[in-house]
Amino acid sequence: MRGRTYLDWNATAPLRAEARAAMAAALDVFGNPSSIHAEGRAARKLVEEARAAVAAATGADARNVVFTSGGTEANALALAPGLRRAGRGPALRLIVSAVEHPSVQAGGRFAPEEITVLPVRPSGVVDLDALVALLKTSPPALVSVMLANNETGAIQPIAEVATLVQEAGGLLHVDAVQALGKIPFDIKEIPADIISVSGHKVGGPKGVGALVLAEGVGGTAPLLRGGGQEQGRRAGTENVLGIAGFGAAVKAAIGTLPEAAARMRALRQRLEAGLRTASPEVTIFADDAPRLPNTTLVAAPRLKAETAVIGFDLAGVAVSSGSACSSGKVQPSHVLQAMGADPTLVQGAIRLSLGWETAEADIDRCLEAWIKLSGVLGKTRAVGLEQF
Amino acid sequence: MRGRTYLDWNATAPLRAEARAAMAAALDVFGNPSSIHAEGRAARKLVEEARAAVAAATGADARNVVFTSGGTEANALALAPGLRRAGRGPALRLIVSAVEHPSVQAGGRFAPEEITVLPVRPSGVVDLDALVALLKTSPPALVSVMLANNETGAIQPIAEVATLVQEAGGLLHVDAVQALGKIPFDIKEIPADIISVSGHKVGGPKGVGALVLAEGVGGTAPLLRGGGQEQGRRAGTENVLGIAGFGAAVKAAIGTLPEAAARMRALRQRLEAGLRTASPEVTIFADDAPRLPNTTLVAAPRLKAETAVIGFDLAGVAVSSGSACSSGKVQPSHVLQAMGADPTLVQGAIRLSLGWETAEADIDRCLEAWIKLSGVLGKTRAVGLEQF
Repeated sequence: MRGRTYLDWNATAPLRAEARAAMAAALDVFGNPSSIHAEGRAARKLVEEARAAVAAATGADARNVVFTSGGTEANALALAPGLRRAGRGPALRLIVSAVEHPSVQAGGRFAPEEITVLPVRPSGVVDLDALVALLKTSPPALVSVMLANNETGAIQPIAEVATLVQEAGGLLHVDAVQALGKIPFDIKEIPADIISVSGHKVGGPKGVGALVLAEGVGGTAPLLRGGGQEQGRRAGTENVLGIAGFGAAVKAAIGTLPEAAARMRALRQRLEAGLRTASPEVTIFADDAPRLPNTTLVAAPRLKAETAVIGFDLAGVAVSSGSACSSGKVQPSHVLQAMGADPTLVQGAIRLSLGWETAEADIDRCLEAWIKLSGVLGKTRAVGLEQF
Repeated sequence: MRGRTYLDWNATAPLRAEARAAMAAALDVFGNPSSIHAEGRAARKLVEEARAAVAAATGADARNVVFTSGGTEANALALAPGLRRAGRGPALRLIVSAVEHPSVQAGGRFAPEEITVLPVRPSGVVDLDALVALLKTSPPALVSVMLANNETGAIQPIAEVATLVQEAGGLLHVDAVQALGKIPFDIKEIPADIISVSGHKVGGPKGVGALVLAEGVGGTAPLLRGGGQEQGRRAGTENVLGIAGFGAAVKAAIGTLPEAAARMRALRQRLEAGLRTASPEVTIFADDAPRLPNTTLVAAPRLKAETAVIGFDLAGVAVSSGSACSSGKVQPSHVLQAMGADPTLVQGAIRLSLGWETAEADIDRCLEAWIKLSGVLGKTRAVGLEQF
């Protein structure tokens, strides 16, 4: 939007030019990819090109990429009893970290009694000692730990997690929705068994994502059945336009990752320095953990997130209170609760997330709004920011 | 595609101009509809406008429209034990007609032993006497009968089905994916409890559909859980672009339905008259049932569908052998098998489906190709059409 500063990139990103171009070209490719005639084959080609791009971005083989309607569906498809790696027994229970996205915490097709929660340390990273203890019990577990948290940006010690899970004969699902395009990773190097990614966080359209499997991993019953699409792993006519946009976006994101990450990191440094100068009492969550280069979750005493978000919005700055999926709900962030954060701070946490189009001017505008809001807050402590 | 004749509209339709315009306008509306800032609210507005359009097209209230990733997901979401109408017991078993789409035949979340198949008559319409008998047993059933068949175009006696289901205290799911935009219907007038529709059959993009509930119907556990989107009935960031395109397409489809249907019916008459003149031995399936105005499923002795589709394709005409979802698989159409069709004809069934852009020239070109293929067929009976 003209004249606005958008700092809510973890909720969703604007379409990348590359995705827009790919989708414009795909508008006339209207065939059904399952049809064998020329129109169908043209659509199939777009889907397979995008599949190759997602595979390249995640270190997987194209035949192990399953397109879904987004990260939530990818997570729901991933989390099912029966998932197995060749030579190992199937996962019969689920361990999820306490800071997973709600779509992972929902547990997919595992029954509630088959799900155990892995706690996190105050820094926001998973407690590896607790994981060792949880893995000691049987049967083999599917462990779901995200690569980077959507609210704090905390990057999990995923290589250590992978080693522990492997040693225990379990399987590892990694929700890489927020990490994709922001930090490099490779399914083979982690190594993970199954990874979820989403299109709209990397500048593709909303409504498309993918489940990416390591070689030799299978056994999950499809969630959507009927047609034979996606090698029988996900029925339903493919979202050709969305898939084409996702493919182009992820290719662009990976191609520019090092520069974009460095740029965002520098801008975030400016932002956090500015916040600390303006409000020495601020808390920046997960500050002592490795974090995504673009994410700051900040709170100040007496700030109320819901009203602050509206105040920022009226000042022309789009920010979020915790994750977008949780906004509209009144309960405090489950991520901050799991980190044992001060309850008075939890209700004031504002997420400022940067993207590849964020400029210095955006940071400065955000800081101006912050200072203004802090000032108003100082004068109207009793009523919060309701006048915005 | 330039210079091509597309007669596979039941597989998927080209984007309508209205959908294209709506999507072009939506390209810059990049916010997450769950976000409360201006960017989020702008995206929310697009989603809600489209919801109103789908509601208007189906006779439902907007709050009872749940957007999904397509017809397959809508069917999977619909078919679950627990669905109930206020004042009635929950459905605990499923009755599906023998000619349902594979995504309905898969049975959603009903266990295989909870599913019974309702046979159809040779005309392709469901056997109402058999339905009466199936409904006599307990417990209350969810009955899934499509409004119109995707392969034959046969329109089911859905009002009679609804009456029988209501009298038995059951619930009725209607897969209206192929009917939407081709014949008028209203969820209240059928009356149905729950209806599935899809965007790309009416000129919207692929990858979006909706489940439409009658007032007072609920009880289905969501298939995708996590975020609170779609009133908690379907988690996951909304496919804003696809939803906007679907809304615009369905509005245009309903607005032009009577003229489009009359036009397609006249063109189909020309097509079928031409086929019968060229090949007096042809069979047009479900010819003695009410049919969609756009669909002809035709077979001729000795014709092999798979090779004929390739022959048509090389002649510049896109047609289908049965449903697109089944193509690529070698098994014969379950629809024709359920109708008890001659097995030698079943393997030769070609679906010619018309759309709102089909012109007389397309019909004539198709007939020319048919005549040419029939002639070649006559000379090479032993080898089929492999030379194409």
